[in-house]
Amino acid sequence: MKSLTDYLWFNTKTARAYINITPQVEGLVAKSGIKEGMVLVSAMHITAGVYVNDEEDGIIHDIDEWVERLAPFRKDYQHHRTGETNADAHLKSLLIHHEVVVPVTKGALDLGPWQQIYYAEFDGRRRKRVIIKVMGE
Amino acid sequence: MKSLTDYLWFNTKTARAYINITPQVEGLVAKSGIKEGMVLVSAMHITAGVYVNDEEDGIIHDIDEWVERLAPFRKDYQHHRTGETNADAHLKSLLIHHEVVVPVTKGALDLGPWQQIYYAEFDGRRRKRVIIKVMGE
Amino acid sequence: MKSLTDYLWFNTKTARAYINITPQVEGLVAKSGIKEGMVLVSAMHITAGVYVNDEEDGIIHDIDEWVERLAPFRKDYQHHRTGETNADAHLKSLLIHHEVVVPVTKGALDLGPWQQIYYAEFDGRRRKRVIIKVMGE
Repeated sequence: MKSLTDYLWFNTKTARAYINITPQVEGLVAKSGIKEGMVLVSAMHITAGVYVNDEEDGIIHDIDEWVERLAPFRKDYQHHRTGETNADAHLKSLLIHHEVVVPVTKGALDLGPWQQIYYAEFDGRRRKRVIIKVMGE
Repeated sequence: MKSLTDYLWFNTKTARAYINITPQVEGLVAKSGIKEGMVLVSAMHITAGVYVNDEEDGIIHDIDEWVERLAPFRKDYQHHRTGETNADAHLKSLLIHHEVVVPVTKGALDLGPWQQIYYAEFDGRRRKRVIIKVMGE
Repeated sequence: MKSLTDYLWFNTKTARAYINITPQVEGLVAKSGIKEGMVLVSAMHITAGVYVNDEEDGIIHDIDEWVERLAPFRKDYQHHRTGETNADAHLKSLLIHHEVVVPVTKGALDLGPWQQIYYAEFDGRRRKRVIIKVMGE
């Protein structure tokens, strides 16, 4: 099995942000020379996620409202006794999930027509990163 | 690393449907000849999911009610400004997750006694597909 | 591709429990001798999950409250017509997700500074298990 590993760094200007990282993942698959296999794309933080969905501003707005509705900011989380204020970001990360595994076929990402890979930041304005690991032959 | 890739097509009669695809995944694992590794089962659409849970009509009904409660149909999603009406299906897809990775041991799916692999359709009545990629030795 | 497979058994004293299994996963990665690849950590039950997040008592409490809020115990789930009373545990398992894929780089788990691998029990007081499969070179 061959593999290639790289990391993407982020430092978003807003607390929450949704960034299409498909081009960077595609570039790494091409660089790896792997024809058949998969790529693991995984946030390295407990307050961020990675998901696959549409590149359309409306749905991104809807996703942002939805994660806030299901995992809202509140002052009274027990995690905040540590001095942190970001328990909602932990829950949003669990809701969206922190990693995806994307198939690689014939040397390219084998995604459906509307599938794009997104980094979801839930507690930004600091340096954070994602690991991308391409594996296969 | 050896691999075998195939695709399943669906065209459900209802907008939402839950289809047990374990037999098809098992068949592909057997065909691959792979003894140790994993199989990636991933929806190729942003309004469908793949999950592992029970084959029991009651729980499938409960899952369907639950995804509608947490990601309900509404008219006023911003995504609908594009002319689409299926933003809830995007959110249901994120909730259930669009892919699973299932272990393969001694040439078979290494699932627990009640685990079954389901395709979850949230915006059906059109041709859609799932990729199945078996990888290992 | 090399691989190493092992299973962890649990029998929690409470119905719900959150157990950090990172040391066991790390140990298996070391034992495998695999330097580059991934490890699949997957619950073998439909009423349990595996997730990656923080080892901090407050957030674990918050996660437990959150899964109960979004997938509450109720008497009237249709699944209960079978005689079971654990439909909420099925839904909690879907919410948290039942498996994670963690990268292995230079012979070790390639996790961010706060990422820990947890087994989430939602219907305990019985013997249950998790499969750990390390794959790579």
